[in-house]
Amino acid sequence: MIVSALLTSVGINLGLCVLFFALYSVLRKQPCNLKVYAPRLVAEGRAGKRSHFNIEGLLPSAGWVRRAWQPSEDELLNSCGLDGVVFNRIFIFSLRVFSVAAIIGIFVLLPVNYLGDHLRDIDFSDLPNKSLDLFTISNVKDSSNWLWVHFSAAYFITGVVCYLLYAEYKYISNKRIAHFSSSKPQPHHFTVLVRDIPSHGRSSLSDTVEAFFMDYHPSEYLASTVVCRTSKLRGLITDTENLYRRITHLKSRPSSSQNQSHTGFLGLFRKNGDLMGHYEKKLEDLKQNVRLQQSDTSTGREEVPAAFVCFRSRYGAAKALHIRQSTNPTEWVTEHAPEPHDVYWPFFSTSFTQRWISKLVVLVASVLLIVLFLLVVAFVQGLTYLEQLEALLPFLKNILKITVVSQIVTGYLPSLLLHLVASLVPPIMKLFSAMQGYIAISEIEKSACNKMLLFTIWFLFFANVLTGSVTSQFQIFLDPKTIPERLAVAVPTQASFFIAYVVTSWTSLSWELNRTITFISDLISRHCSKTNDDEFQIPSIPYYSEIPRVLLFGLLGFTYFLLAPLILPFILVFFCIGYIIYRNQLLNVYQPKYDTGGRFWPIVHNSTIFSLILMQIIAVGIFGLKKLPLASSLILPLPAVTLLFNDYCRKRFLPIFHDFSAETLIKKDREDRNDPAMEEFLDKLVAAYRDPALMPIRHLTNSNDRTSPLLSSEV
Amino acid sequence: MIVSALLTSVGINLGLCVLFFALYSVLRKQPCNLKVYAPRLVAEGRAGKRSHFNIEGLLPSAGWVRRAWQPSEDELLNSCGLDGVVFNRIFIFSLRVFSVAAIIGIFVLLPVNYLGDHLRDIDFSDLPNKSLDLFTISNVKDSSNWLWVHFSAAYFITGVVCYLLYAEYKYISNKRIAHFSSSKPQPHHFTVLVRDIPSHGRSSLSDTVEAFFMDYHPSEYLASTVVCRTSKLRGLITDTENLYRRITHLKSRPSSSQNQSHTGFLGLFRKNGDLMGHYEKKLEDLKQNVRLQQSDTSTGREEVPAAFVCFRSRYGAAKALHIRQSTNPTEWVTEHAPEPHDVYWPFFSTSFTQRWISKLVVLVASVLLIVLFLLVVAFVQGLTYLEQLEALLPFLKNILKITVVSQIVTGYLPSLLLHLVASLVPPIMKLFSAMQGYIAISEIEKSACNKMLLFTIWFLFFANVLTGSVTSQFQIFLDPKTIPERLAVAVPTQASFFIAYVVTSWTSLSWELNRTITFISDLISRHCSKTNDDEFQIPSIPYYSEIPRVLLFGLLGFTYFLLAPLILPFILVFFCIGYIIYRNQLLNVYQPKYDTGGRFWPIVHNSTIFSLILMQIIAVGIFGLKKLPLASSLILPLPAVTLLFNDYCRKRFLPIFHDFSAETLIKKDREDRNDPAMEEFLDKLVAAYRDPALMPIRHLTNSNDRTSPLLSSEV
Repeated sequence: MIVSALLTSVGINLGLCVLFFALYSVLRKQPCNLKVYAPRLVAEGRAGKRSHFNIEGLLPSAGWVRRAWQPSEDELLNSCGLDGVVFNRIFIFSLRVFSVAAIIGIFVLLPVNYLGDHLRDIDFSDLPNKSLDLFTISNVKDSSNWLWVHFSAAYFITGVVCYLLYAEYKYISNKRIAHFSSSKPQPHHFTVLVRDIPSHGRSSLSDTVEAFFMDYHPSEYLASTVVCRTSKLRGLITDTENLYRRITHLKSRPSSSQNQSHTGFLGLFRKNGDLMGHYEKKLEDLKQNVRLQQSDTSTGREEVPAAFVCFRSRYGAAKALHIRQSTNPTEWVTEHAPEPHDVYWPFFSTSFTQRWISKLVVLVASVLLIVLFLLVVAFVQGLTYLEQLEALLPFLKNILKITVVSQIVTGYLPSLLLHLVASLVPPIMKLFSAMQGYIAISEIEKSACNKMLLFTIWFLFFANVLTGSVTSQFQIFLDPKTIPERLAVAVPTQASFFIAYVVTSWTSLSWELNRTITFISDLISRHCSKTNDDEFQIPSIPYYSEIPRVLLFGLLGFTYFLLAPLILPFILVFFCIGYIIYRNQLLNVYQPKYDTGGRFWPIVHNSTIFSLILMQIIAVGIFGLKKLPLASSLILPLPAVTLLFNDYCRKRFLPIFHDFSAETLIKKDREDRNDPAMEEFLDKLVAAYRDPALMPIRHLTNSNDRTSPLLSSEV
Repeated sequence: MIVSALLTSVGINLGLCVLFFALYSVLRKQPCNLKVYAPRLVAEGRAGKRSHFNIEGLLPSAGWVRRAWQPSEDELLNSCGLDGVVFNRIFIFSLRVFSVAAIIGIFVLLPVNYLGDHLRDIDFSDLPNKSLDLFTISNVKDSSNWLWVHFSAAYFITGVVCYLLYAEYKYISNKRIAHFSSSKPQPHHFTVLVRDIPSHGRSSLSDTVEAFFMDYHPSEYLASTVVCRTSKLRGLITDTENLYRRITHLKSRPSSSQNQSHTGFLGLFRKNGDLMGHYEKKLEDLKQNVRLQQSDTSTGREEVPAAFVCFRSRYGAAKALHIRQSTNPTEWVTEHAPEPHDVYWPFFSTSFTQRWISKLVVLVASVLLIVLFLLVVAFVQGLTYLEQLEALLPFLKNILKITVVSQIVTGYLPSLLLHLVASLVPPIMKLFSAMQGYIAISEIEKSACNKMLLFTIWFLFFANVLTGSVTSQFQIFLDPKTIPERLAVAVPTQASFFIAYVVTSWTSLSWELNRTITFISDLISRHCSKTNDDEFQIPSIPYYSEIPRVLLFGLLGFTYFLLAPLILPFILVFFCIGYIIYRNQLLNVYQPKYDTGGRFWPIVHNSTIFSLILMQIIAVGIFGLKKLPLASSLILPLPAVTLLFNDYCRKRFLPIFHDFSAETLIKKDREDRNDPAMEEFLDKLVAAYRDPALMPIRHLTNSNDRTSPLLSSEV
C-alpha cells in the first residue's frame, strides 16, 4: 500500500465518523428514538421529555460527548457496576500505554526507520506515492547500529507496560474489595451451590441436604433449595408467553385510533375478534396446564442432585465452599453460587448424557467454524494483492485499473469484510459456551470471552500474518525454534493491511454508537408492525464480544510497535473514540445483567502479557534477520522477566478475583451483626434461589428476562 | 543377543542371588551383625540374644523368608506406617498386573511371534544360538492377521491395568482415611504453618500473629510459635556434638580392657589424657557459647516471618488452611504443617536471596548432570554392540573373541555399569530438592522421588532407546507426529539390552538384602576404629530412590509387553524377589522417619498411566510399521480412554491425598471432645513446634537425628 491509499482510507473513515457522529447527535434528540439511544434512561424514567418537534433538534451538536465525558468513576460504578468500570479501565490503560508508545514510535522509531534507507538521502518529494514500507523497520540497513534504538525501545516499552499493568491490577483489585465491602448483603454471598448430592433412595434429596448440613454446619446452616428439572414447564411457559404477547398485540390494534380505518377495512376487525376468542381459549388452556405442571412438580418433583444452600454468614458459606465436604471427593461438590438472576436454569434440566453429547457437538462445531473462517480469511487476504485477484477473476481487470476503485478494494474492502464476518462469531461462541454446562450466564459470557479472544487472535492476527494452508500454519508451532524468525518475516509484510484495518475500525465504532441494526429494526417495526410501545428490552453490553475486539488493537499496537510505528497514532485515535463512545453507551444504552465484580480484568491482563511476549519474540526474530545477533540474544531475558512478572501478578492479585479472604468476610459479617435489616434479609434469602419456572403464573410477563435470559441479550 | 548369552546371564545372576541369599541367612544369624541386619529390632529390644557361637548359625536357612512373608498388612501398618504399606502394595499391584501380562505374553504372544517367522518352519533345533529377535514382534510378517492378537492383547491389558489401578487407588485411599480416623491426636493435624507474616515494625512478630488469629479465629486459636533463624546456633551445636562424640570415643578406649596394653604402649595413654583435658575445656567453652546464643536469641530473637499456629480442633486448623486469610494474597499464606520431627529447620534459616541463588544452582547442576549421564549412557550403549567397541579400542579385539568374555561384556557388564552409575544419582537428587526450599523432609523426599522418576525414565529408558546425540533425542518431541513410528523402530532394537538389565537387577536386589556397603563399613569400623558400640543409627528407607527404581521395571514390562514378551517372566521374578526382600528390610532394618499417609501412591499411579500410554503409542507405531493401518487407527481410542480414566481417578481419589474432608475432620473432633486426654495433648501441643536448636543443651546427644535430619538418612 502506498501513502496515498492510506490517506484515502483515513479520509473516507474520518468522513464517515464525522457523518455518523452528526447523525447520532441529531437522531438522539428525536423523542421517538429515545428507546433506541437511551433505553436505560427511559426505563429509569430519567429521559427528559421534550416537545414533539424542535428546530434545534435537527442541528448536530457535541453535547453528548460532554455528557459521556463528565461522570466520575464512582458514578460509572453506581450506574454500570464494577464490570462497566473495568471495561472503561481497558480504554484508560490502553490510552496510557499507547500515548507513551506513540510518542516513542513517531518521534524516535519512525525517523530512524525512514532515515535508515539504504540510499541515505532524505527525500520528502513524491511522498504520496511512496510505499508505507519506508516507515517500517525493513527500511533499516542490516546490522546497522540504529537497530539498538529499537532494542532500547523494546526494553523501555516492556518496563512501562509492566508498571502500568501492575498499577491497574492493583487499582482494580482494590476497587473490587472496596466494592464488596460497601455492598449491601446479597444472596450469592451467603449461598453455595452443592452438586452431586448422593441419593439414598429412602429420603428425598431435600431431606438429605438438610440432614447433611445440619449435621456438619449446625450453627451456620440456614436453608436449602433443591433444583428441579423444569424443561417441560419452561417450554409451556414460553408458549403461554408468546400467546399472551400475540393477544395483547391484537388487542392493541383496534384501540389505537389512527389505525381504526385501516383495520376495519376489508373486514379485518371481524376476523380479529374470532382469532382473539380462539387465542384466549388456548391461553386459558395453557395457563391451566402450567398451573397443573407447577403443582405436579411440587408434589412429585423430579429433583436434580444439586441444591443452593444458604448460610447465616458469608464466612459460613466460605467454609462450606473451600473445605471439601465429603470423604468421597466426587460427592457434595461445592461451588460459588451465582447471583439469583444470573443462574442459567436450563443447564440444570439437561441430563448427564445430554451434556456429554452437547460437548461433543461443540467440539465438532468448533472445527467446522475454524475451517469456514480460514476460507474467508484466505479470500480477504487475496484482496490486498490485486494481482492475485486479477488472475482469479480476469473480467475485473478493467475496473480495478481505476485508481479509486483499486484503492478502495485494497485499502477498505478487505478489512470491512473481516469486520462483518467477525461480527457473526460472538453469538456462535456464546452458544458454544452455553452448551458446555456453565451454571451462570456470567460464566458463559466469560468463557465465550476467552473463546472470542482465542478466535480473534488466531483468525484476525495469525491467519492474516501466516498466509498459507491451515496445516502450514500449525506446523510453525511444531518447530518452536523457527517461530521468531518466521514471525519476523511474516508480520511486517502485513503492516499495511493492519493499518487499514485499524482505520476502518473507527467507522465500526460509530456503527456501535448509532446502534445501526437496532435503529433500522426499530424503524421498521414502528412503521410496519405497530407493536405495543411499552414493550421493549434494555440490552446488556456483550462484554464477550467487545473486550476481545478492543484487546485485538492492543495486540496490533504491541506487535507493530517496533516494526511499523506508523500504526500507533491510528490505534490511539481508536482508543480515544472508543473511550467516549463506550462511556456514552454504558451510561445511556446498556444495563448490567450481572455483576462479576471485575472478573474480566484477568483476561485483559493475560492478553496484554501475551501481546508483550509476542512483541518480544518477534523482536528476537527481527534482530536475527537484521544480522544483529547480539541484540537478538540480549532480548531473550525480556520474555523471561515478563513471565516472572506475570507469575508474581498471578500470585499477588488473581486470588482476589476468585474469592474473598477470611479477613474481608469476617469484617463484613461483623458489621452486619448489628444491622436490624439482616433478619429480614435472611428470611428473604430462603426464597431467592427459586426456579422462576416455578413462580406463580401471574408473574409470567414480568419474568420474561428470567426464564430465557440467554435470549434476552442483544446479539 | 542370542539365547545362550541370555541363559549365561540368567545363570550368573541366579547363582549370585542364591549365593547372596545364603550368605545373608548366615550373616544374619551372627549376633555381631545384628546392628547391620536388624537395627530396628535391636533398637526396639526385640532382637533375640543368642550364644556367641553356634554351628547352626553357619548353615544357610530360609527362615527369614517365612518371617518376612508372614506378617499381615495391619502388622506392617503398625510397624512401618502407611508409607511402608504403600511401598509393599506397589509390589502386590505389580505382581498382579504382570502375572496376567506374563500369562498372555508367554502363552499367546510369544508363540505367535515365534511362529510368525517368514519361513513358517517350526524349528527348535539350535535354539541356544538363535537370536532373541525370534521371540519379538519383528518376527511377525508385515500386515499379517496374527497382529490382531497383539491388538486384542493391548486392549485387554489396558482394561486389566485400569481395573487394578482403580481398585488399588480405592484401597489405599480407604486405608488412608481409616488410618487417619484411628490415629491418636497428632500435632500436625491441629497446626498450620503461616508464611509471609507482615511486620508492622512496632510489635514483634509473635504479637502480630497472636493478634491476627485472636481477632479472626477467637474460638479456635490456641497458640503460635514463631520460627527463628538459628543457622549460627545450629553450627555451634554440631561442633559441640562432634567434640562430645570424640571425647566419649577417647574415654571408651582406656576403659576397654583388651586395649589397655595397646594404648599404654608407646605412652599413648599419657597423650590421650592431655588431649582429653584439651577437648573437655573446648567442649565447656562451646557449651557456654551455645547457652549464650540460646538465651541471646530468646531475648533479641532474629525472627523469621513464619509461624506454626496451633488450633483447638482439626476443623479449626482446616479453616485457616483452606480459606485465604488476608486481603493481600501474598501475606499470611497458610500451608499444611508437617509433623514436628519432619520439619526441615535449616530451610527457615536461609534468606530469600540464598534460596533464589540455590534454585539457580540447582538448575545449572541439573544441566550438568544431564550432560554427564548422557556420556555414560552413550558409553554403555557402545558395549552392547561389540563391533563398535572393537573399532574404538582395537587392542581388545583378541580378548573379546573369547565367547565367555564377549557374552559377559554384552550381557552383563553394560547393565551392571548402569546400575552402579544410577545408584549415585539419588543422593544428588535429594540434595537438589533440599535446595529448592521445601519445609518438610517428607516433601523433599517426595520431590526427589519425582525427579528420580523423570531421571530414571529419561536416562534408563529413553536415552537407551533413542540412541544418538542429545539434540536428536529432544528433536523427536518437536515433531510429535513421528513419535509413535520412531519409538516403534527404536524400542524393539533394545529388547535384549533391557532383558539383560532386568536379569542383573535380581543381583542388585540381593545387594540391598545384604546391605553390602553398610556391612563392609561396619566390619571395617568394628575391627579398626573400635567406636562406641551403643552408637548406631537406624536407617530410614529412601523411598525417593527405591520407588522410581521399582517403577522402571513396570515401565519396561508395559513397553515390551507387545514387542518382546520374553521379558515378562524375568520381571515377574524381579517383583517376587523384591516383595520378600523389601518386606524383610521394612520389618527388620528401616524405621519410618515420617508418615505422609500414603502420599507416594499418586506418583505410582501417574507413572503407571504414563507407562500404559507409552505402550499404546508404541503399539500405534508398530501396527503402522507392520502395514496394518486399520489396527493402528483402532488403537487410537485407547490412550484417550486411558487419559479419561486417569482424569476420573484424579477427581475421585487425588483430593483425598491432599487433605481430609470436613466430614472426616468434624467426626474426629467430636470423638475427641469426650476424651479427657485431650486437655493434656493441647497443653503439650504448644511446645511441639519448637526449633530443636533452642532446646536446652542437656538434650544435645539425644536430639542428634533432629538437628540434622537430612544427614541422618542412609544415602
